Amino acid sequence: MPNVAILGASGYTGAELVRMLATHPQMKIAALSADRKAGMSMAEVFPHLRHLNLPKLVKIDEIDFASVDLAFCALPHATTQEVVSALPRDLKIVDLSADFRLRDPAAYAQWYGREHSALDLQQDAVYGLTEFYRDAIKGARLVAGTGCNAATGLYAVLPLLEAGVIDPDEIVISLVTGVSGAGRSAKENLLHAEVSEGTGPYALTGHRHSAEFEQEFSKAAGRAVACTFMPHLLPQNRGILASVYVKGDAVAIHAALQDRYAREPFLEVLPYGDAPATRHVRGSNFCHLGVVADRREGRAIVFSTLDNLVKGASGQALQNANLVLGLEETAGLMQAPLFP
Amino acid sequence: MPNVAILGASGYTGAELVRMLATHPQMKIAALSADRKAGMSMAEVFPHLRHLNLPKLVKIDEIDFASVDLAFCALPHATTQEVVSALPRDLKIVDLSADFRLRDPAAYAQWYGREHSALDLQQDAVYGLTEFYRDAIKGARLVAGTGCNAATGLYAVLPLLEAGVIDPDEIVISLVTGVSGAGRSAKENLLHAEVSEGTGPYALTGHRHSAEFEQEFSKAAGRAVACTFMPHLLPQNRGILASVYVKGDAVAIHAALQDRYAREPFLEVLPYGDAPATRHVRGSNFCHLGVVADRREGRAIVFSTLDNLVKGASGQALQNANLVLGLEETAGLMQAPLFP
Amino acid sequence: MPNVAILGASGYTGAELVRMLATHPQMKIAALSADRKAGMSMAEVFPHLRHLNLPKLVKIDEIDFASVDLAFCALPHATTQEVVSALPRDLKIVDLSADFRLRDPAAYAQWYGREHSALDLQQDAVYGLTEFYRDAIKGARLVAGTGCNAATGLYAVLPLLEAGVIDPDEIVISLVTGVSGAGRSAKENLLHAEVSEGTGPYALTGHRHSAEFEQEFSKAAGRAVACTFMPHLLPQNRGILASVYVKGDAVAIHAALQDRYAREPFLEVLPYGDAPATRHVRGSNFCHLGVVADRREGRAIVFSTLDNLVKGASGQALQNANLVLGLEETAGLMQAPLFP
Amino acid sequence: MPNVAILGASGYTGAELVRMLATHPQMKIAALSADRKAGMSMAEVFPHLRHLNLPKLVKIDEIDFASVDLAFCALPHATTQEVVSALPRDLKIVDLSADFRLRDPAAYAQWYGREHSALDLQQDAVYGLTEFYRDAIKGARLVAGTGCNAATGLYAVLPLLEAGVIDPDEIVISLVTGVSGAGRSAKENLLHAEVSEGTGPYALTGHRHSAEFEQEFSKAAGRAVACTFMPHLLPQNRGILASVYVKGDAVAIHAALQDRYAREPFLEVLPYGDAPATRHVRGSNFCHLGVVADRREGRAIVFSTLDNLVKGASGQALQNANLVLGLEETAGLMQAPLFP
Repeated sequence: MPNVAILGASGYTGAELVRMLATHPQMKIAALSADRKAGMSMAEVFPHLRHLNLPKLVKIDEIDFASVDLAFCALPHATTQEVVSALPRDLKIVDLSADFRLRDPAAYAQWYGREHSALDLQQDAVYGLTEFYRDAIKGARLVAGTGCNAATGLYAVLPLLEAGVIDPDEIVISLVTGVSGAGRSAKENLLHAEVSEGTGPYALTGHRHSAEFEQEFSKAAGRAVACTFMPHLLPQNRGILASVYVKGDAVAIHAALQDRYAREPFLEVLPYGDAPATRHVRGSNFCHLGVVADRREGRAIVFSTLDNLVKGASGQALQNANLVLGLEETAGLMQAPLFP
Repeated sequence: MPNVAILGASGYTGAELVRMLATHPQMKIAALSADRKAGMSMAEVFPHLRHLNLPKLVKIDEIDFASVDLAFCALPHATTQEVVSALPRDLKIVDLSADFRLRDPAAYAQWYGREHSALDLQQDAVYGLTEFYRDAIKGARLVAGTGCNAATGLYAVLPLLEAGVIDPDEIVISLVTGVSGAGRSAKENLLHAEVSEGTGPYALTGHRHSAEFEQEFSKAAGRAVACTFMPHLLPQNRGILASVYVKGDAVAIHAALQDRYAREPFLEVLPYGDAPATRHVRGSNFCHLGVVADRREGRAIVFSTLDNLVKGASGQALQNANLVLGLEETAGLMQAPLFP
Repeated sequence: MPNVAILGASGYTGAELVRMLATHPQMKIAALSADRKAGMSMAEVFPHLRHLNLPKLVKIDEIDFASVDLAFCALPHATTQEVVSALPRDLKIVDLSADFRLRDPAAYAQWYGREHSALDLQQDAVYGLTEFYRDAIKGARLVAGTGCNAATGLYAVLPLLEAGVIDPDEIVISLVTGVSGAGRSAKENLLHAEVSEGTGPYALTGHRHSAEFEQEFSKAAGRAVACTFMPHLLPQNRGILASVYVKGDAVAIHAALQDRYAREPFLEVLPYGDAPATRHVRGSNFCHLGVVADRREGRAIVFSTLDNLVKGASGQALQNANLVLGLEETAGLMQAPLFP
Repeated sequence: MPNVAILGASGYTGAELVRMLATHPQMKIAALSADRKAGMSMAEVFPHLRHLNLPKLVKIDEIDFASVDLAFCALPHATTQEVVSALPRDLKIVDLSADFRLRDPAAYAQWYGREHSALDLQQDAVYGLTEFYRDAIKGARLVAGTGCNAATGLYAVLPLLEAGVIDPDEIVISLVTGVSGAGRSAKENLLHAEVSEGTGPYALTGHRHSAEFEQEFSKAAGRAVACTFMPHLLPQNRGILASVYVKGDAVAIHAALQDRYAREPFLEVLPYGDAPATRHVRGSNFCHLGVVADRREGRAIVFSTLDNLVKGASGQALQNANLVLGLEETAGLMQAPLFP
């Protein structure tokens, strides 16, 4: 049974990895790191995991990577580059940060405000949108997890660009997301008193996941594609819903999604004219998609929803880790959504 | 001091009218009707109003309209036509239903699934979007309150069409709304267990407020205008946020809103590049508007938020009633929003 | 592999059973019933289960019970008596209703307002509080699931009465519960607009789970025990927290809980002085317990929390079904809680 | 018209004062202070107040107190002592902190972990529970606002001790409170992701408001009274509900409350057997009280609910300021609760 380590286990995505690995039949948690909380038990940091028999939290340099087959890296961007650069080169890595998502160093510098310091590693990285990079992920040394908002929109749009059923110049992604996507950081704007009954847009000058949309949309369309993307913060903990306004025939769009995802275990295309809701994917690795016709002819609305902490982060990471390690792709991931 | 009656006082909009009238210096509640709850006190139906000395709930035909100056009509559509037809012709009416909003009988029949039975009254009705119909409202016998979603979008878009700063054929209104807009009706989809953590779109085959958008947009543009409009149900009680994606110069758009609303007491245009949130208008008659530039040149996003039960319904109604009765327009309406 | 049927699959507890059975290695869902929704697919009723390949919903009399080993009965009380009376006598039944919880027919009549019509079946029933009736459940034909509030309080108090470390005449159970415990019923008091920001007590003249407390407390104490029990409705979907105020030494109380639950897989006693929260058991079969000393000497507060739909209903039922069928008790139940 | 200053205007209680003063007919906001946010406008800190024409935020020493009649002091405890000591001795002060609530310096030192440094001012302070100290408040120089939890429990219990209808040695206060009571502080335990669906007790080793209970209960009973008090954090923004378990006759208890509060403008005693809910006092200065009989003879449960930011803090402060300044006690405070 492969041994895995989770670097950055004291955040929500780290805890989610532990939660899913708790019932994974073929991976063993060998080490958990958390810099500032080293020495603590996971039960102290995340009491919901107290029934599990887990290793104590340690600093990364206390981990003996010789006995680790794969590391999940759930650290902040920038820090991630440094940490991964120092890890053994034969260690397989599934990264959840933004550090290796963008293939173009200039795009990275533009959106993240600093030069990338590990461009050699960036060369090795495979973008972790499983359903579109599956074969490359199987052979990857380093998988770069997608942004959670990015994944939600990409699932809705990529098949449409591939199939040529929408106008690439008229894509508007209006997206709402729960607060857990912002992590376990004590910020005023994430307080219950501010968020509850408080919906509003954020990242008003441009959200970093725009770079992922452009990178992947352009690749799928075979030419440069830009889009409108506006995220909003929602008074709920989990769940992203992207409402994508496009020009194209709704029936053809629906067919393109159905065709593309017909054999995918986690992507559910709803019947034509039906729409998904965040409550139906909560806590699971599923993504639900729906298509409705706009009242204006030749236009359609595509909806995509997933759980930002699962299919948008830790579930995706586990799915990719399964591939990297040659395990069953769905192992540990078939838990049904939690509703209500 | 004018006497007012509230017909349909057992719903949320009825209760909101009572709440605001409780501190209104120049109106007296003379009668409250509620068909199925006739005989009950308001304290039984709405315990939050128990400190007020209010008339008992009665059936409409028990009200002596001779001593009533103005009736707020907060009844379901269709019922409203019948009730208003039977009221004295000299009674001033501020209606909150959908029955008199659409000037075109064919549009009414199309969207509401039945022929209008009081077309003569429809002739008299003035559309209740105060800031755009103020003078007509002052002299009106019957004011037709706008839809709550409609008002939110109209405030964002009408000045832009009037000023000619956006492309009328490229308007996408993506809107989120709290549950109270659906009223106090015991429906499965409005249960806490379904709504909480449950965001999703609704009215997938077209929302009735689309008819109001088209009517008013076309009037403002001087030609037929259609738009995309998609509402979503939000896990919160109050608040609508419309995110309107348009083609036009963001700076010119912002200037058009500022010019149009410079002297309006309830419409607050935020500084350029800033965006509003539902938490900042809760419980108040204010509407906050913001404009940001899209990353794609020549496109902008306009945000508009208001409290669906106040500026989107009962506050608007009270503002219009003030005008109809020749009172100070802002009387009883200057309560600041409740945050957090 | 045993075949199971779920009677009443269109409610929340029915859906929860399906959710957990989806990853249960040793049970197969052979039939799903729902009277008013017969003919529909589960995906229509519960879209979060759409990825599963499930039998269609049917009426109970369409089920061939010859091929069913065990039926979960998730129907309303009263109806349950009738349905179970008509089922084959060799069919094993795990019931989630209130119909077979009370051993005393007079208590049933008093609390449920009608005579019990299946007293012979009542004789066979074993009370489903697994950790206190494990051996009897293993051999049972009919297991009567506990009330969700009852289970929460019983886990806190029964070991204390057994160990004689509290005064049986001074037990105050102040409890808060999420809305899903009330089921998927379209009632005004369960609407989001009423529940959100709306906490208050309910069942003011006495809650039916009081009968379970008295039955089990009296059995444990060896004499009649009555207690104070007051439930409150909470603006959240899942989770019950019982705060139990008792007279006794806090350290001795903590020791009694630790001793009693030392080898229990689902009952976690927190370190002395620590307290649980609903967020740490959500979506799981775990119950967390904590004890703190009151500032008044000789008094303590015992906290108990569980997910009403899992350990308080469907998880408990599955745990009992595992025992009845001779399977591993924890099979399908080791999913970690979902947080945040 | 009296001029008032608000010291500490950048917190929730400061904003609430501004909200209520916005429609107060007889007070003028002359100055607003906020140390770390000095130089900013209130609209930047609290966008919901952007429609108001308010003075800029300044540091306290920039305020010219010669033109100020009364200062609301909404600063943290300890800081408050220092600030108030440095203010002009003829300035009237309504304090919202904990610094002047406890008449016994030893109690202050015990609960707040430091010696009090302004005992001379403490001598002048009147405890701000208006309905029990009205006459003293009218002549006070310094009014010490009560704790929000304390006020909720005191309203339920004090009349019962005064009337001698309960056993003073058997008072259990189980209380739930929304998050806004903890202020606008960026703490992990107040994040939406932690609070939502997350109910649990806090202050496990004793809450400071216990000291207020003991001080006032002992005064009312004429002898030392201790009680059990356990607060819980609730997934909502506003509202406290105290469920008080007592020994005494429920009918006599109800009568004692009715008698005591018959002429109080803000205290509403519900009909016997009815219970209040937080949703019915939200955003208002009202406190709703209810009494039900326990199923055990000779015991009763008293419920009390109020909005922690209004009647529990800023509303109470304004009510007291009205008295201090010789204004109508209810001026600016008659806004009805906001529901839903």
